[in-house]
Amino acid sequence: MTPALSRQIRAAVKAALAEDLGQGDATTSALFPKPLHARGTIIAHHAMTLAGIAVARQTFQAVDPSLKLVRVAKDGAKVEAESTIMVIDGDARSLLMAERVALNFLQRLSGIATLTARFCDAVRGYRVKILDTRKTTPGLRALEKWAVKLGGGHNHRHSLGDGVLIKDNHLALAGHDVAAACRLARERAPHGLKIEVEAKTLDEVRAAMDGKADIILLDNMDVPTITRAVELIKGRAAIEVSGGVTLANVQEMAAAGPDMISIGALTHSAPAADLSMDIVPIQRRTIRK
Amino acid sequence: MTPALSRQIRAAVKAALAEDLGQGDATTSALFPKPLHARGTIIAHHAMTLAGIAVARQTFQAVDPSLKLVRVAKDGAKVEAESTIMVIDGDARSLLMAERVALNFLQRLSGIATLTARFCDAVRGYRVKILDTRKTTPGLRALEKWAVKLGGGHNHRHSLGDGVLIKDNHLALAGHDVAAACRLARERAPHGLKIEVEAKTLDEVRAAMDGKADIILLDNMDVPTITRAVELIKGRAAIEVSGGVTLANVQEMAAAGPDMISIGALTHSAPAADLSMDIVPIQRRTIRK
Amino acid sequence: MTPALSRQIRAAVKAALAEDLGQGDATTSALFPKPLHARGTIIAHHAMTLAGIAVARQTFQAVDPSLKLVRVAKDGAKVEAESTIMVIDGDARSLLMAERVALNFLQRLSGIATLTARFCDAVRGYRVKILDTRKTTPGLRALEKWAVKLGGGHNHRHSLGDGVLIKDNHLALAGHDVAAACRLARERAPHGLKIEVEAKTLDEVRAAMDGKADIILLDNMDVPTITRAVELIKGRAAIEVSGGVTLANVQEMAAAGPDMISIGALTHSAPAADLSMDIVPIQRRTIRK
Amino acid sequence: MTPALSRQIRAAVKAALAEDLGQGDATTSALFPKPLHARGTIIAHHAMTLAGIAVARQTFQAVDPSLKLVRVAKDGAKVEAESTIMVIDGDARSLLMAERVALNFLQRLSGIATLTARFCDAVRGYRVKILDTRKTTPGLRALEKWAVKLGGGHNHRHSLGDGVLIKDNHLALAGHDVAAACRLARERAPHGLKIEVEAKTLDEVRAAMDGKADIILLDNMDVPTITRAVELIKGRAAIEVSGGVTLANVQEMAAAGPDMISIGALTHSAPAADLSMDIVPIQRRTIRK
Amino acid sequence: MTPALSRQIRAAVKAALAEDLGQGDATTSALFPKPLHARGTIIAHHAMTLAGIAVARQTFQAVDPSLKLVRVAKDGAKVEAESTIMVIDGDARSLLMAERVALNFLQRLSGIATLTARFCDAVRGYRVKILDTRKTTPGLRALEKWAVKLGGGHNHRHSLGDGVLIKDNHLALAGHDVAAACRLARERAPHGLKIEVEAKTLDEVRAAMDGKADIILLDNMDVPTITRAVELIKGRAAIEVSGGVTLANVQEMAAAGPDMISIGALTHSAPAADLSMDIVPIQRRTIRK
Amino acid sequence: MTPALSRQIRAAVKAALAEDLGQGDATTSALFPKPLHARGTIIAHHAMTLAGIAVARQTFQAVDPSLKLVRVAKDGAKVEAESTIMVIDGDARSLLMAERVALNFLQRLSGIATLTARFCDAVRGYRVKILDTRKTTPGLRALEKWAVKLGGGHNHRHSLGDGVLIKDNHLALAGHDVAAACRLARERAPHGLKIEVEAKTLDEVRAAMDGKADIILLDNMDVPTITRAVELIKGRAAIEVSGGVTLANVQEMAAAGPDMISIGALTHSAPAADLSMDIVPIQRRTIRK
Repeated sequence: MTPALSRQIRAAVKAALAEDLGQGDATTSALFPKPLHARGTIIAHHAMTLAGIAVARQTFQAVDPSLKLVRVAKDGAKVEAESTIMVIDGDARSLLMAERVALNFLQRLSGIATLTARFCDAVRGYRVKILDTRKTTPGLRALEKWAVKLGGGHNHRHSLGDGVLIKDNHLALAGHDVAAACRLARERAPHGLKIEVEAKTLDEVRAAMDGKADIILLDNMDVPTITRAVELIKGRAAIEVSGGVTLANVQEMAAAGPDMISIGALTHSAPAADLSMDIVPIQRRTIRK
Repeated sequence: MTPALSRQIRAAVKAALAEDLGQGDATTSALFPKPLHARGTIIAHHAMTLAGIAVARQTFQAVDPSLKLVRVAKDGAKVEAESTIMVIDGDARSLLMAERVALNFLQRLSGIATLTARFCDAVRGYRVKILDTRKTTPGLRALEKWAVKLGGGHNHRHSLGDGVLIKDNHLALAGHDVAAACRLARERAPHGLKIEVEAKTLDEVRAAMDGKADIILLDNMDVPTITRAVELIKGRAAIEVSGGVTLANVQEMAAAGPDMISIGALTHSAPAADLSMDIVPIQRRTIRK
Repeated sequence: MTPALSRQIRAAVKAALAEDLGQGDATTSALFPKPLHARGTIIAHHAMTLAGIAVARQTFQAVDPSLKLVRVAKDGAKVEAESTIMVIDGDARSLLMAERVALNFLQRLSGIATLTARFCDAVRGYRVKILDTRKTTPGLRALEKWAVKLGGGHNHRHSLGDGVLIKDNHLALAGHDVAAACRLARERAPHGLKIEVEAKTLDEVRAAMDGKADIILLDNMDVPTITRAVELIKGRAAIEVSGGVTLANVQEMAAAGPDMISIGALTHSAPAADLSMDIVPIQRRTIRK
Repeated sequence: MTPALSRQIRAAVKAALAEDLGQGDATTSALFPKPLHARGTIIAHHAMTLAGIAVARQTFQAVDPSLKLVRVAKDGAKVEAESTIMVIDGDARSLLMAERVALNFLQRLSGIATLTARFCDAVRGYRVKILDTRKTTPGLRALEKWAVKLGGGHNHRHSLGDGVLIKDNHLALAGHDVAAACRLARERAPHGLKIEVEAKTLDEVRAAMDGKADIILLDNMDVPTITRAVELIKGRAAIEVSGGVTLANVQEMAAAGPDMISIGALTHSAPAADLSMDIVPIQRRTIRK
Repeated sequence: MTPALSRQIRAAVKAALAEDLGQGDATTSALFPKPLHARGTIIAHHAMTLAGIAVARQTFQAVDPSLKLVRVAKDGAKVEAESTIMVIDGDARSLLMAERVALNFLQRLSGIATLTARFCDAVRGYRVKILDTRKTTPGLRALEKWAVKLGGGHNHRHSLGDGVLIKDNHLALAGHDVAAACRLARERAPHGLKIEVEAKTLDEVRAAMDGKADIILLDNMDVPTITRAVELIKGRAAIEVSGGVTLANVQEMAAAGPDMISIGALTHSAPAADLSMDIVPIQRRTIRK
Repeated sequence: MTPALSRQIRAAVKAALAEDLGQGDATTSALFPKPLHARGTIIAHHAMTLAGIAVARQTFQAVDPSLKLVRVAKDGAKVEAESTIMVIDGDARSLLMAERVALNFLQRLSGIATLTARFCDAVRGYRVKILDTRKTTPGLRALEKWAVKLGGGHNHRHSLGDGVLIKDNHLALAGHDVAAACRLARERAPHGLKIEVEAKTLDEVRAAMDGKADIILLDNMDVPTITRAVELIKGRAAIEVSGGVTLANVQEMAAAGPDMISIGALTHSAPAADLSMDIVPIQRRTIRK
C-alpha cells in the first residue's frame, strides 16, 4: 500500500466516522456507563474476494487505539462462505461505535473486488488485462481502484491529469482529424504520457493508426468488429476494448485479442458483499490469550 | 433542500473534482488552447427517478461559473427513457472537465432514487413507509438519504446520535433484560429521543412491550410472524420491519400491517442509473437565445 | 468521554493554542534559550465543581508531549478552596506557553459546572432534572454541555437536528393549530424523535395535550400556573419548565412537579471560576520521584 | 473592521452554524415544506452597548443570502431597553435556522461591550485607558477583543507573539534580576516590541526602572501603593494597573494616575446581554417596501 | 488557466495573506481610521517576462473585492524596464495590506519566467524544448510550473504519479538490468505512461534502447557524448538532456540534437524579479474615469 | 524550535508531499513490489550553513515512521564541501518517495542560511544585526525566517500585525506630518509595539526625531548620508539601514554605525544550496549496527 493510499484511507475513515457518530452513540452511551470487555467477529456470508480489511482495521484503530486485532484475513484473499475474517477484542462500546462504518467499507470494497475477480476468472488463459474506469463513487476513487487491483484487475487513469484519451467529442469540438489531434497532443501534453484515441468504427481505427496513436480504444464494437480491428492494428498500437462488456460476453471479447478490457460496472454497479459482525462479552483473561 | 445538505453537496463536489481533475485535464489542455462554445446535453437512457440534479448543477458551477443552464429537469422527477435532463451551454473545456463527476453523482443518486421508487410503488395503497438504513457509502450518507427521499422513501437515523435502537447484542453485552435496558435508555438518553427495540421472536416482542418501547423493530421475521407481532402490539408501539426485504416480497410484508419497512439495499446495492452527456459545438448566437 | 467529544476537545485546543501563541511566545523565547526543568501547579481559589481537566491535560500534551502529569484531579470532582488540581513537570517554556489556554478552558468550564451543581443542589430531593439550552458559546457547545453533565445536569438538544420543539412562532407562521402541527411533525420528522410543544398558558397546555405532544414545555409560567399545568397533564406527557429560573426560585418550581427544568444561564452567564498556575524551577531528580 | 477580523467572523459563524444545525432543523423541515415570507425583529431587552451586529448579519447571510436587512443598528451604538436592533425579511425557515446562532453571538459580545462601557464611564475624565487581557473564551479572542474596543476599551496583547511581558515567574525561573532580564529581552526579542515588566512591590518597581523597562505593570497593588509607584516612575515608563479591579474601585485607581488599567473580567465574566427575536408572517409586498 | 490552477492560486493567496496579515496591519489600522481613495501602481524595474499577474489580481480581490483594476498587463508578456504593469484603484488601506503579498508572488514567478525565457531565447532556431524539473519550492509547484510555461518552457512531471523515470539507483536497488526494469514498468505502471530511463554513459544508452525505453534521459553528459548518444538513438526514442546546463552552454547542447533539455535552476535558483508599488491619494472622480 | 514552528513544519511537509506524490510513485510502485532494505545518504556538495534538517527529518518520518536516522547533522551547523549530513536506513521505496521533497526543503533553507552567514561574516566585529524582511516565499515565511536565524541573522516583523512601520506613502496618504503620524500610532496601536519611521533624507530623519520615533529606518541612503544620520540621531532612536545592501558594501554600511541592516535578498534571491541523496541496498544486519 502506498503512502498516498494510506493517507486517503485515514481521511475516508475519519469522514465516515464523523458522519456516523454524529454527536455520539446515544444507545451505547445510555446502556454502557463503563467499559465492558467483548470480542467482535466479522463474518463473510458468501464466497468473496476481500478488500477493505486495512480500512476496517483503521476504523477500529481510529475509534479506540486500545482495541486488539486477534485475527485478521488479508486484503485480496479469496474466502469461503461463513469465513471469519476479523476478530477484535476490547471495549464493547468501541466495537459498537466502529461496527457500521467498518462494515460499510468492507461490503462496498469487497463487492468490487469480488466482481473484478469474476471477470478476471472469466478471461483466465488470455493475456488480456481487466481495467476499471473513472466511473467511481465520488470521494472513494482511490479506495475503489485499490479494490479492483485486489480483485486481480488493473487501473486505468486515476484522473484526467494522468492520461491523454481523445474521444469523438474532442474531435468534433476541435474540428481536427485524428492525425492532427494526435500531433497536437504529442506537442502539448506532458511528454511522459501516451496518446490514446477512441474509435467506434474500423475507419476510425485506421485514422488513429495514421495519427500514430500509442493506444486505440475500441468503443462499443461487437466481437467480429473487434477481431477485424485487432487484425488491422497488428501490434502497431496497444488495444483497449470498452462498452457493453458483461460476464456473459467477456471471454469472447478476450478471445478476439485485445490487450485490455475496461468495465465501468466494476465500480459503479458491484452489489454489496454481505458481511456482519457479532459482539459477545468475554473474560479479560480471554483477551490476553 | 436544507442549508446543511447544500453544504455537504458543495463539499462532496469539491472533493470529487479534486479527485478527478488531478493536475488538470491533459487531453483538453492539449487540444483546446482557447475557449470554444459548445452545448452539453445529459440524457437518461432508461425510465428513472432523478436524484442529483442539484449536485450536477453545482459541479458545472464549481468548474466554471460562466456555464449557463439552458434546461434542467427537477430532482425527484420521474422521466422516460432517452429523456433530456440537463442542457448546459458554455466553454467546451469546462463541460469536458465537469462531465464525469456530474455523471458519477447522477448515476449513483438516481440509481438509489429509482430503486426506492420501485419499492414505494410496490406498497402503494398501504400506509407503510419505506425507510433507508445506515448501510450507506462512506462519505455520501447525506446525499444518499436525500436520494431516498426523492424516490418517495423516508429516512431512518442519520447517525448513532439521533436515535436509540437497542439490539440483541446490546442486551447480551449489558446483561440486562429488555425492560431494564428501556428504563436505562429513558433515564440517560437525550429526552427528545424515542426508544426503539429490536425483536427477533414473538417473545422478544412481548418483552419489548413490557419495557414500554416506543418503537419495535421486527428483525428478519417471515410474513406470518410479522402478522402475529402486529396483532400482539395493536398500536401500543410503532412497528418497523427489517431484513430480507425484496421487491418480490415487500407488498406481502406491507399487507401484514407494520408502520415502516427499512431496506439496506436501497443504498448499498442500487445499480447505477445509465446516463451520458453529448457535447457539440454551437454558435455563440445560439447560446444567447 | 465519547470519541466525538475527544475529537472536539482536540480541535478546540488546537484552535485556542494557535490563537494564543501567534508566532511564538516572544517573552519566553527571549529569556529561555534552553530547556529548564520546572513544576507547574494549578490551584482552584474557591470551592468549585471541576470541568475541563481533560482539556487542560490535552493542552499541555499538545504544546509538549514530554510534559509529565504528576497529579491531577478528576473532571466532576467537587474541591475545596485553594485545592491543588493539577501538577505538571517538564520544560518551563512549555508550561509558560500552555498556561493561559489551559486556564481559560478550566475557568469557563468549571464556572459552568459549578453553577449547574448549585442548581442541582437546590432541587435535591425532587426527581426533576436540570437541563441546559442551546444558549451556548459559539464553537464550544459540546464542551459546555459536557460541563453541565459534570455538574450533575442533563443535556437538552445538541442541535436543531436532534429534537422537535414546536414554539408559538412556528404555530403563528404555519397558521396551524397545535394538533395539526403535531400531526405534521409526527408524519415528517425522523421517526425516532419525540414531539415537544411550547405552551405559555393553560389553554395552550390543553391544546398540546389534544395534539398528543410527547413533551410539553411550560414557558415563563409562574409557580401556581406550573402547578395547575402539572395537574392537568397528569403523566400524559413529560413536562419541562423554562424561563425566569433562578437559584432563588428553582426549588419552588421543582416542588410544583415538572420532570425537567431548563436554564439558559448555566452556559451563557456562569461567572468564570478562579484558578491560577504557579511555576517553580525544580531539580530533574524531583521529576522522577 | 480589518480583513483579518472579517475572516475570523466568517469562520466563527460557519463553525457555530455547523454546531447548531447538525443534520438540519427537524422542526422547521417538518412544519414548513415551502418558503414562507416573514419578518424577524431582534430586540434588546435592557440598555446596552451593541457588539456583534456584523456577526449576526453574517449569520443570516450564511444561512440564506436572499434574506434582506431592512433595518440594522450599528456596532458600538448605545441603545435603550426594548430597542429594535435588527429587522430582517425573508423565508421564515431561514430566520428560524439562523436565530439562535445570531442571538448567541449578540448576547455574548454585547455583554462584553456593555461591561467595558461601564468601566469606561466610571473613569471618564481621567486620561487612563481600559484594557482587556488574554483571559478570553478559547476560539473567540478576536471577536471578544473587538467587542472590548466597541465598548470604548483598548486591547492588550492579542497573543504571546506580539508583546514582551516579564512576570515574576519568568524571573524566578530564569534566575536573572530584572535588569538582566530586560537586557536579554531587548537583545533577543523582535526589535519592534516594547519591554513590559510586572511589579508587585515598590522595590520591584525600582528594579524595573533600573532595567529600563518601557512599561511597568503594577500587579495587585492597593491604591496608596499605586499612587507611590506613579510618583516614583514619573513618566520614565508607561504604567499599567492590573488585579482586583471592580466597578466599585476603578475610579479611585484611575485617580492614582496610571496610563492603563487592565481587567480580565471584561471577557471572562461579563453576563450575557438579553436579546430575543420575534418572527411574524408578512405579505411579500411588505418586503419590497 | 485550468480550474486546478485557479484553485491552487486561490489557496496560495489565502495562505500568504494569513501569513502576512497576522492579526491585522497595525500601522494602517492606527493611521487610517476611515477609507481613503488611492491608486496603486506596480512597476517592473527591469526588462522581464511577467508571471503571476493573475495571482496578484487574486490577492487584491481577496483583500478587498471593491478594488478596481484600471490597467493590467498580461501574464507571459515581455515588458521593458520601468513598465507599469498594474494600476489598481480603491481604498488605500486595502492596497497597503495586499501590497507585499502581491509583490512577493510577482517577484518570484516573474523571476522564473524571465530566466526560462532567457534559456528559450538561447536555443531559438533549434526544435528542442526547455523543461523544468521537480526541484520546485515546496507548496508552490503548480504556480512555478505555470511560470515556466509563461516563459516559453514546457513542464516535466508534475508529481511522481504522472511519469515513469527509471534512474540508476532504481536499477542498483532492484538488481535488474535495464531491459528487465523496462519490462516490469510496462507491465505494472498505469498503461497511459511512457517509460523513461536515465543513462550516464553510452553503454547505458544502448541498454535503454534494448529495453525499448520510450524516452532516454542523458544525465550529466558533455556535448560530444550527447552528440554520440543522439546518433546512436536515431529517433528510436525521445531524448532528454539534463545536468550542468547553463545559459553559457545550452545552445551547444541544443545543437547536439536532443528533443528536450531540463534545468532545475529554472525554479530553484531564479533570482527575484524587481518590482515595486507606488500608492498615491486620488480624487474619487479619478477612479470612475 | 517553538511549537508554532513545529506545527508549520508539519503542515509544510504534508503539503509538499501531497504535491510531489500525487497518486503515488509510479516508478517505485512498478519496480519494487516488496520492501527492500537500503541506506540513503544526503551529501552537501559545497561548504554551507545547514538549515532544514528538522524539515527533512519530518519528511522521512511522514512518509514512513519506520525509517531510522543513523546520523544527522545539526541545523545551523557549518559544514565543508562533500560532507555527509544525514544517513537514513529503511525501506528503499520510502527513501525514494521522500527524497525530492526533503532535498527541496534543504536546498532552499540552507541556501538562505548560507547567504545570511556570509553577510554576518562580512560585518563581524561590528555590533550591527543582520535582519530579514517580509520579502519571503509565500507560504514559507516561518521556515525562511528560521533559516535566517540559523545563519546568524535576526528577524524583522513576521507580519503586519507585530510592528508599526510608517513609510512615506503612509504619510502622503494620511496627509499628516511625521510628528502627527507618530502621535496617532502611539495612541491607537497596541501599546506593546514600538513606532518605526522610514526616512529617505536627513530632513526626514529630523522629522522622525521630532515625532519621537522609537526606531528610524534609513532607506536607500549612501554611506556618507548614513554616517550623518547616525551622528544626528546619537542614540535617541534605534537605527535600521535598508536598500541596496550587497556583500560588497555591507561592511562599509556597518562601519557607519547603525543598529540593524535589513536585506530582502536573504530570502528572495538566495541561490539554492547543492545537495543530493545516494541510495544503496544494504543487509538488514547493517541497519541494526
